[in-house]
Amino acid sequence: MSDVSIDDLPVRDELRGKSPYGAPQLDVPVRLNTNENPYPLPEPLVERIAERVREAARHLNRYPDRDAVELRTQLAAYLTKTTGHPVALENVWAANGSNEVIQQLLQTFGGPGRTALGFEPSYSMHGLIARGTGTGWISGPRNEDFSLDLPAAEKAVAEHRPDVVFVTTPNNPTGNAVPADTVRALYDAAQAAKPSIVVVDEAYVEFSHGDSLLPLLDGRPHLVISRTMSKAFGAAGLRLGYLAAHPAVVDAVQLVRLPYHLSAITQATALAALEHTDTLLGYVEQLKAERDRLVAELRSLGYEVTDSDANFVQFGRFQDSHAVWRQILDRGVLVRDNGVPGWLRVTAGTPAENDAFLDAVREIKKEHSA
Amino acid sequence: MSDVSIDDLPVRDELRGKSPYGAPQLDVPVRLNTNENPYPLPEPLVERIAERVREAARHLNRYPDRDAVELRTQLAAYLTKTTGHPVALENVWAANGSNEVIQQLLQTFGGPGRTALGFEPSYSMHGLIARGTGTGWISGPRNEDFSLDLPAAEKAVAEHRPDVVFVTTPNNPTGNAVPADTVRALYDAAQAAKPSIVVVDEAYVEFSHGDSLLPLLDGRPHLVISRTMSKAFGAAGLRLGYLAAHPAVVDAVQLVRLPYHLSAITQATALAALEHTDTLLGYVEQLKAERDRLVAELRSLGYEVTDSDANFVQFGRFQDSHAVWRQILDRGVLVRDNGVPGWLRVTAGTPAENDAFLDAVREIKKEHSA
Repeated sequence: MSDVSIDDLPVRDELRGKSPYGAPQLDVPVRLNTNENPYPLPEPLVERIAERVREAARHLNRYPDRDAVELRTQLAAYLTKTTGHPVALENVWAANGSNEVIQQLLQTFGGPGRTALGFEPSYSMHGLIARGTGTGWISGPRNEDFSLDLPAAEKAVAEHRPDVVFVTTPNNPTGNAVPADTVRALYDAAQAAKPSIVVVDEAYVEFSHGDSLLPLLDGRPHLVISRTMSKAFGAAGLRLGYLAAHPAVVDAVQLVRLPYHLSAITQATALAALEHTDTLLGYVEQLKAERDRLVAELRSLGYEVTDSDANFVQFGRFQDSHAVWRQILDRGVLVRDNGVPGWLRVTAGTPAENDAFLDAVREIKKEHSA
Repeated sequence: MSDVSIDDLPVRDELRGKSPYGAPQLDVPVRLNTNENPYPLPEPLVERIAERVREAARHLNRYPDRDAVELRTQLAAYLTKTTGHPVALENVWAANGSNEVIQQLLQTFGGPGRTALGFEPSYSMHGLIARGTGTGWISGPRNEDFSLDLPAAEKAVAEHRPDVVFVTTPNNPTGNAVPADTVRALYDAAQAAKPSIVVVDEAYVEFSHGDSLLPLLDGRPHLVISRTMSKAFGAAGLRLGYLAAHPAVVDAVQLVRLPYHLSAITQATALAALEHTDTLLGYVEQLKAERDRLVAELRSLGYEVTDSDANFVQFGRFQDSHAVWRQILDRGVLVRDNGVPGWLRVTAGTPAENDAFLDAVREIKKEHSA
């Protein structure tokens, strides 16, 4: 059977010739390519996770709480505390990573015969999950400086009448945030056009200089704020994404969620991490300072840098960004080539990791000007 | 905004008026409704889970192994050991419950414009996940005694030319197994018709009197065996499903899987459970004996009982099965009304739980004949 390959299988036509999504996982000393938090969880939290998981494991023969009530209650408390906007259990839904949250939203409000629109370059999984759910994908415009071009965005929404609109703020991979007024106007345009569900992906919002757009939920039942514990909570390995929205949206995604999608172990681990919010947000402050340092140093070296409200920095411009990516890798530092022509993305790591990165680009700069 | 309900949202038309899938979760003394394993994990395994999760938590800031190589290797070793059929890493794929495995299979081989066929009554999630992935669903026939009607099945496959065919063995909720010869013939019919992917759902196979159909993978690149750790491993709360198939099938589902879908914590917990396979399979032997006792006792009470190769028993017949379900519940025992007219399903619990169930039905029987 060794002669049977993927091309011999009756896979869907649109999957033919495609590759699985995912950054290259290379074994190098300094990995600043996937926007991970460089700080391991503090040891008291590690112990608390072991403790809560041990307790959950004693009931592992039973299905988990299908509605994840305790976890959603604590996520709501976290959002209320950090945004000042009251959020309750019935406003919150959680899944295995924000990717699964987005998949559930597209299964509910997108799907065959419907379309979703995002402003690119942005988080490429939005378009990939659209494809995976049979939702048509429309690539919306941005300004040259990667900010959202509101008049062009409004025009795109009016013209295409998408069922779902994605706004990523801070945007990945560019790093810049979208002002609240822009999202307000875009929401209105999307309602006038269809009405559409507007998904504001705030995966990186804890690193922002500004505030969360969560208070915009007031009076906007078609608005969804998507969040994750992968970045600010330093828990990329946990796969815990969540959303805040009108309770009707939470009811709606339950029509498509796989029953018992969120394991008892995942719920226990996330609850432990939420008990240590203050410590983890302390690391976020350190990372914001390091991010600002990266922006300043790269600019002083003469690079162009996009304003960043995230835990990563987009820098350029390069004639051949992939060649520069390789030169940096040759110096033991893995950054990300997201396919934005002329630009690369570097995650804010520990001070030592960022130094290693800055040394590498300094060296490359020197060679080029020599 | 309290006046906004799910009906006011732009959800997909086919979701309107639907309810989320899931058995009623009622707080009663004896829960024999969701085919859970009644035996909690042994304490040494609970400790081992805490230990492996503690270690995984120390790296939780990093994304998990996207390809779950260690876990798939150990799942392959388990399949090889228990079936005698050599299975390797590249034959195995894992996801958050067999529901997610099936969703990935339907996203790859089903989807809009394609169809899947199952022989009903069977595991109702097959049809629901088909709906969730935009795959057309075709309900195939069974014999009056719930066995697979091969000539009718072959005819259905030839007529509808489905892209995916589901065969559940042992079947849920009826309990009976499908003979290997029937699956062989059905596979051939499905290849002649399309060719289709044939998914053999073996969620309950460890409880069977007979053997796994896994050796049928030899020479059948369009065959998929689906498995779960929810039942035999006593880990419904873990949500770990997996499949065995030709390596090309494993390559193909990676085109649709969400990146990093399986958390580091889930992988660590599953690996711990796999270390304790022998103990857990000991519980399976006890449950098989209890299952056989339930079948014998129910028959001696005069009930009709479908032959069972699973950890549950289908019994009847009732004029009004929901009324009997309620009568049993009134006696503190929760069984399942799966909507098969005239029949109910009871999970094999501990000896004490099964006694409580048998006492309840004995009492009901007595009242009716009084």
